[in-house]
Amino acid sequence: MSMTVKTLADQIGATVDGEADRLVVGCAGIEEARADEVSFLANVKYARHLPHTAAAAVIVGRDTAAAGGTTTLLRADDPYYAFRQAVVVLHGFRQHPSGVNASAFVSPQATIGRDCTIMPWAYVEAEAVIGDRTVIYPHCYVGARTRTGEACVLYPSVTVYEDCTLGDRVVLHAGCVIGQDGFGYATHAGEHHKIPHVGSVVIEDDVEMGANCAIDRATVGATRVGKGTKFSDLVAIGHGTRIGRHNMLVGQVGIAGSSETGDYVVMGGQVGVAGHIRIGDQTQIAAKAGVHADIPDGDGRYGGIPAVPWADARRTIMAAIQLPRYVQKIRTMERRIVELERRLEQREAEVDQES
Amino acid sequence: MSMTVKTLADQIGATVDGEADRLVVGCAGIEEARADEVSFLANVKYARHLPHTAAAAVIVGRDTAAAGGTTTLLRADDPYYAFRQAVVVLHGFRQHPSGVNASAFVSPQATIGRDCTIMPWAYVEAEAVIGDRTVIYPHCYVGARTRTGEACVLYPSVTVYEDCTLGDRVVLHAGCVIGQDGFGYATHAGEHHKIPHVGSVVIEDDVEMGANCAIDRATVGATRVGKGTKFSDLVAIGHGTRIGRHNMLVGQVGIAGSSETGDYVVMGGQVGVAGHIRIGDQTQIAAKAGVHADIPDGDGRYGGIPAVPWADARRTIMAAIQLPRYVQKIRTMERRIVELERRLEQREAEVDQES
Amino acid sequence: MSMTVKTLADQIGATVDGEADRLVVGCAGIEEARADEVSFLANVKYARHLPHTAAAAVIVGRDTAAAGGTTTLLRADDPYYAFRQAVVVLHGFRQHPSGVNASAFVSPQATIGRDCTIMPWAYVEAEAVIGDRTVIYPHCYVGARTRTGEACVLYPSVTVYEDCTLGDRVVLHAGCVIGQDGFGYATHAGEHHKIPHVGSVVIEDDVEMGANCAIDRATVGATRVGKGTKFSDLVAIGHGTRIGRHNMLVGQVGIAGSSETGDYVVMGGQVGVAGHIRIGDQTQIAAKAGVHADIPDGDGRYGGIPAVPWADARRTIMAAIQLPRYVQKIRTMERRIVELERRLEQREAEVDQES
Repeated sequence: MSMTVKTLADQIGATVDGEADRLVVGCAGIEEARADEVSFLANVKYARHLPHTAAAAVIVGRDTAAAGGTTTLLRADDPYYAFRQAVVVLHGFRQHPSGVNASAFVSPQATIGRDCTIMPWAYVEAEAVIGDRTVIYPHCYVGARTRTGEACVLYPSVTVYEDCTLGDRVVLHAGCVIGQDGFGYATHAGEHHKIPHVGSVVIEDDVEMGANCAIDRATVGATRVGKGTKFSDLVAIGHGTRIGRHNMLVGQVGIAGSSETGDYVVMGGQVGVAGHIRIGDQTQIAAKAGVHADIPDGDGRYGGIPAVPWADARRTIMAAIQLPRYVQKIRTMERRIVELERRLEQREAEVDQES
Repeated sequence: MSMTVKTLADQIGATVDGEADRLVVGCAGIEEARADEVSFLANVKYARHLPHTAAAAVIVGRDTAAAGGTTTLLRADDPYYAFRQAVVVLHGFRQHPSGVNASAFVSPQATIGRDCTIMPWAYVEAEAVIGDRTVIYPHCYVGARTRTGEACVLYPSVTVYEDCTLGDRVVLHAGCVIGQDGFGYATHAGEHHKIPHVGSVVIEDDVEMGANCAIDRATVGATRVGKGTKFSDLVAIGHGTRIGRHNMLVGQVGIAGSSETGDYVVMGGQVGVAGHIRIGDQTQIAAKAGVHADIPDGDGRYGGIPAVPWADARRTIMAAIQLPRYVQKIRTMERRIVELERRLEQREAEVDQES
Repeated sequence: MSMTVKTLADQIGATVDGEADRLVVGCAGIEEARADEVSFLANVKYARHLPHTAAAAVIVGRDTAAAGGTTTLLRADDPYYAFRQAVVVLHGFRQHPSGVNASAFVSPQATIGRDCTIMPWAYVEAEAVIGDRTVIYPHCYVGARTRTGEACVLYPSVTVYEDCTLGDRVVLHAGCVIGQDGFGYATHAGEHHKIPHVGSVVIEDDVEMGANCAIDRATVGATRVGKGTKFSDLVAIGHGTRIGRHNMLVGQVGIAGSSETGDYVVMGGQVGVAGHIRIGDQTQIAAKAGVHADIPDGDGRYGGIPAVPWADARRTIMAAIQLPRYVQKIRTMERRIVELERRLEQREAEVDQES
């Protein structure tokens, strides 16, 4: 797609501050962009590149200072969203192949919607229901009675066990596994006896998961991932856990079983959450934190192992880094106290002698 | 399966405290259960739901207090195990398809036991031996000379490299990889030279692994997972490591190479264990701990990074959380010492003047 | 392969200290080795086994003390590399099947090099280019326009999305996913709007990755993994991140997007690295560390959460473990200061009275 900076600006809700007539054909990073590409100031760290970029234009906020050089700015209220719109307009989304391939296995008892794509060696078991326009890549497995909504995408080697439910527009990247048995064993007489997992997984509309995520089915009832929630790669969710709507879970997050998150929860990379706890709406949890207790609703930021309010965690971290210095201080103070005690004792003894 | 509460109680070794004649058809959580379902008090947190549940009966311990309401209780010595038995009796285990599908590849040099299931596009390489009643789902790969025992289940997209050995009743959930080369390189003249991994992996009877686990083959000898051990999802085991019997490793645990665990070891989520160490029998390691040194046998609880006995770890964590307060205390104390020194000096000076 | 200890020593650049004529057929661990196997002293912990090993010979450093027993030593300048050479000489590398199987799907628009192996149900999309002697195992997916170099190996169930580039001799173990969309969403009006990921992944020559790794494609531009770098299992790399040459990333490392590592960086297991930072050449990061800020070039060792120079991290850890003891000290000191103040005040009062 090719268009002028002006046309692009109109389509993404930005105003042009500079040359409006140059043609742009795509998006690129601020250091790599060529003269026919539009870029974005993703992080204040890169502001130094602004005057030197070759980009036709750079998307910035309404009140970003002028670049200094001759760089054309596209000013937007929400520059990150405007950049996203630019990528959609200039590049669009991935196009998928179409049609049900003869090398796929589709059970005669399965129901396939209209305009679905089922690629070679995808396997769709009996009584599965595949929604209209859903795309299933090679080497996927869809278990018995599992239902997908409309316009889902299962990338290669995704496995969805039986009796699971996917909403509309659910996207599962390659290697995701949905609905395996959870980690439930009753230890009795020295052996771990497996509990049959007769529950399921429900994934609501507009959920997307990165590669190789693993979502356990519930023992009874359902593990649930709420509408609009996004996972990065290698996220693990335990059995019976209910993730709220519009959560953002960064890579390698792990949440144990029977826990619950509210809406708009954000977790940094490698966060761990214990079982049977609740994390309130809009909570933000710093990377690597370990959450062991309930967190109330309301925009709280948490961090540390165990996770505490972020301001406290930060203070603890700062204090911990200076700990060796304080240990030194404590030792010095002890010596000074001993010396004070000695001197005071001496003084007292002298006074006693005097009197 | 449908039966009276009384019949179920007899089958799971429980006694009925309440209505024995209601029919039950399945198991459910205490909040979700309907009038024809039996439930379980999984966690003391949920005890408040006991008087209000619609469940036909709730499995509890022998000495749980009466529910207060009209809830029927099924009292058992080991209520979690009794619940497990109830799920087995009322729901049973997953049923697998049967037969060797013509779209599977089975090498003419492979040996397939009786009553095996090999689903479409499973690949069984030469000289592999598949035990009786073993089930291999689509998109699995079984390497040359690899042997499975009886009644194993390989869920979709499991890969087992060559020369590995699985015992009886081993269950590998989707996406598990067994026997890839370990992380062994000799760095020489600025390059990391790969060491061929000519060892193998041995997985003993009754082991179950969650989705997307990764078990490295040994450089020489064998990586080993002991009888009855259970892994949750995304667990990584390094080359030459020997996991003992009846271990429980929760999600995202990682154990480096050449380490060893005893029997009945339990690790919480995201625990990491360094290479070349030994963790003794019955050790319990708290989630997110990092184990860098040997731990003796004997029921010890450990936690923290680096892991120390749990009581110490807890004390350290509690002290660390209060660290900023202590830093404040130290500063105050310093001022008070300075003041004491000043006053004492003044006193001494006065006394000297006097004398 | 069978040869005398002397012949092996010559081939691996070692000198024989003991019996040179025994025949050796393979390599084994020092405890397991039989009389026709050669072993290696991998870790000083195992030195106690040296006099008792049944091995025909043990590879050690030039200045390792004589074993005491009759054990034959093979002395080498770089004993780990010499051991590696011995494994190569005596065992060699894994042999792969050959030929393009009729059950593979190779797009008529794909280009396949000479002497490639493409196994059943591997899928090679249009305009993909597969280099000479590359081996693709069953259930792999190679997207449109993706290129591999020569002599690559894609083990079973590897997925490489479209438009990615692999150099020569790249090895991807089973379940790796390369080129899935990164974690990029513009949150606008309460929804997370997906940013199309139009960038790619470039993996340079001689990279090897363990099982189930996940490498995000860049939003624009390329995620890059430098020549000779090695990953263990379950490593996650974010979009737009550039990993340098000859890095070693141990299992379950996670690196967020837009970060960069220099050359010869080493990270222990479960290390996490935040986005938009740079880690300098030759940095070594201890297991479980969390890196939140830039690290300069130059052989630094870092550890802790947040990561700081290792000597500081160690001091902090040591101090933290003793923290409860210091808290006790602080309480005692406070009492002693109060007592000193009381006594001094009394003294001062007496003196005031006197005067």
